Amino acid sequence: MVTFTFRRQITIEWGHCDPAGIAFNSHFFEFFDQSTWLLFDAVLGVKPHELLAAYNLVGIPLVDARANFLIPAKFGDVIEIASRVEEFRRSSFDVVHRISIDGKLAIEGSETRVWAGAVANDPEQMTAMAIPPEVIAKFG
Amino acid sequence: MVTFTFRRQITIEWGHCDPAGIAFNSHFFEFFDQSTWLLFDAVLGVKPHELLAAYNLVGIPLVDARANFLIPAKFGDVIEIASRVEEFRRSSFDVVHRISIDGKLAIEGSETRVWAGAVANDPEQMTAMAIPPEVIAKFG
Amino acid sequence: MVTFTFRRQITIEWGHCDPAGIAFNSHFFEFFDQSTWLLFDAVLGVKPHELLAAYNLVGIPLVDARANFLIPAKFGDVIEIASRVEEFRRSSFDVVHRISIDGKLAIEGSETRVWAGAVANDPEQMTAMAIPPEVIAKFG
Amino acid sequence: MVTFTFRRQITIEWGHCDPAGIAFNSHFFEFFDQSTWLLFDAVLGVKPHELLAAYNLVGIPLVDARANFLIPAKFGDVIEIASRVEEFRRSSFDVVHRISIDGKLAIEGSETRVWAGAVANDPEQMTAMAIPPEVIAKFG
Repeated sequence: MVTFTFRRQITIEWGHCDPAGIAFNSHFFEFFDQSTWLLFDAVLGVKPHELLAAYNLVGIPLVDARANFLIPAKFGDVIEIASRVEEFRRSSFDVVHRISIDGKLAIEGSETRVWAGAVANDPEQMTAMAIPPEVIAKFG
Repeated sequence: MVTFTFRRQITIEWGHCDPAGIAFNSHFFEFFDQSTWLLFDAVLGVKPHELLAAYNLVGIPLVDARANFLIPAKFGDVIEIASRVEEFRRSSFDVVHRISIDGKLAIEGSETRVWAGAVANDPEQMTAMAIPPEVIAKFG
Repeated sequence: MVTFTFRRQITIEWGHCDPAGIAFNSHFFEFFDQSTWLLFDAVLGVKPHELLAAYNLVGIPLVDARANFLIPAKFGDVIEIASRVEEFRRSSFDVVHRISIDGKLAIEGSETRVWAGAVANDPEQMTAMAIPPEVIAKFG
Repeated sequence: MVTFTFRRQITIEWGHCDPAGIAFNSHFFEFFDQSTWLLFDAVLGVKPHELLAAYNLVGIPLVDARANFLIPAKFGDVIEIASRVEEFRRSSFDVVHRISIDGKLAIEGSETRVWAGAVANDPEQMTAMAIPPEVIAKFG
């Protein structure tokens, strides 16, 4: 499936970097998360903070996250992150995030997330729900 | 290879959790990182902040990180993280981290890291180095 | 007012440190936050994740936070953080956090927080509430 | 002293927010830090990752950080942070950060930092150095 790719640039900050002068790995999972919200905003026209209410969701929790680090990102590097949905299933979907630095692929990431709503009689619990066909259609 | 397993407990804090009341995923990669340093401390008897100097390293950079989230960790949960090296190769190694909550497997993580030293004439660059056999032997 | 002091130790991790090899400042505000929850646990006997429900709160939001850094905390340092309430007012309170390294005062922090409940007809809004006298009495 | 004000906008992300749906306080200290580096970039024309080398510094460590929270920042809020140096002293300086949301002052922050170089015979140690007059002059 060829779907829309959302791109943004992030500058690596002093506070992202560890004593080796390299961005600490956990920050890339923060970048992935926000890029997924922004991808949905770009495709659906729904702001991140309105997405859950718009689709009666409790969250879009991660069930799998992965990153493959090919080139280290250093303080001051401007990284470009390109994100797209690779696959929609009934109630879950995969997002692929490719980060490039100076035009070279530096980090490949992926996320599997669930389209999760509240359980009818127990609002504390989440449950997987079918992703609406019109959502999938917009990703085209 | 059956190697030493390092275990520790971490309590999920208010600041770890997102608006769904669940620990945000990037924190688990922070937990994995520190557990890897503590695993080496437990096996080699070398404190984390002395490890690099002790083995003439610049770092033990991640080349791959992954987490599979089975059960969400909530504010106040006491998680147990059990970490061990699954495989040593010439200059890289895999660490597996299994997090359980109330005795149930909640998150499975893995890291692939490189044993990295400085390049002879360019201290700004890192290069993969052979892991000393005595290091591998201690993991038994 | 002389109140109970809650103490805990935290080890400075690789992931806490910046390229100068020093713990990045924002982490100390994370430590302060969790120590405040643990201080209330120690005094009131209510777990952090049960505190809000126990007192019908929405949160204990910060209105002021401050830290004075006297000695840098480095990778591997074991810091001791001692936290106590310095003053209770009608609906807010001040917590002082003193961090020492090797017995020397390294960082002095303070927080001012509000005892905040939901607004009657608008659960999205928080409002300051009177701190129950029995809570203040237990800090005695 | 009236000095240059550097402004930027930041969108509050899901991962910035706590279970009360409000940006967790430590993130503002991350925002302040990066804005200080960007303020120096804007005034001196030196990129953050080149600042230390350009002025023979080891860092610009914080000695004091403070934030006063007037209005909570929520998921999706676009905050504007305006940062300027309030005072230069011989080897330290104060930066004031004012964050507004929808045109209203939401958070007031301040930082005191040291202009720090290496100690001659001990590169592991930092020491306060005189801020070059040409640096101060450029801030006008």
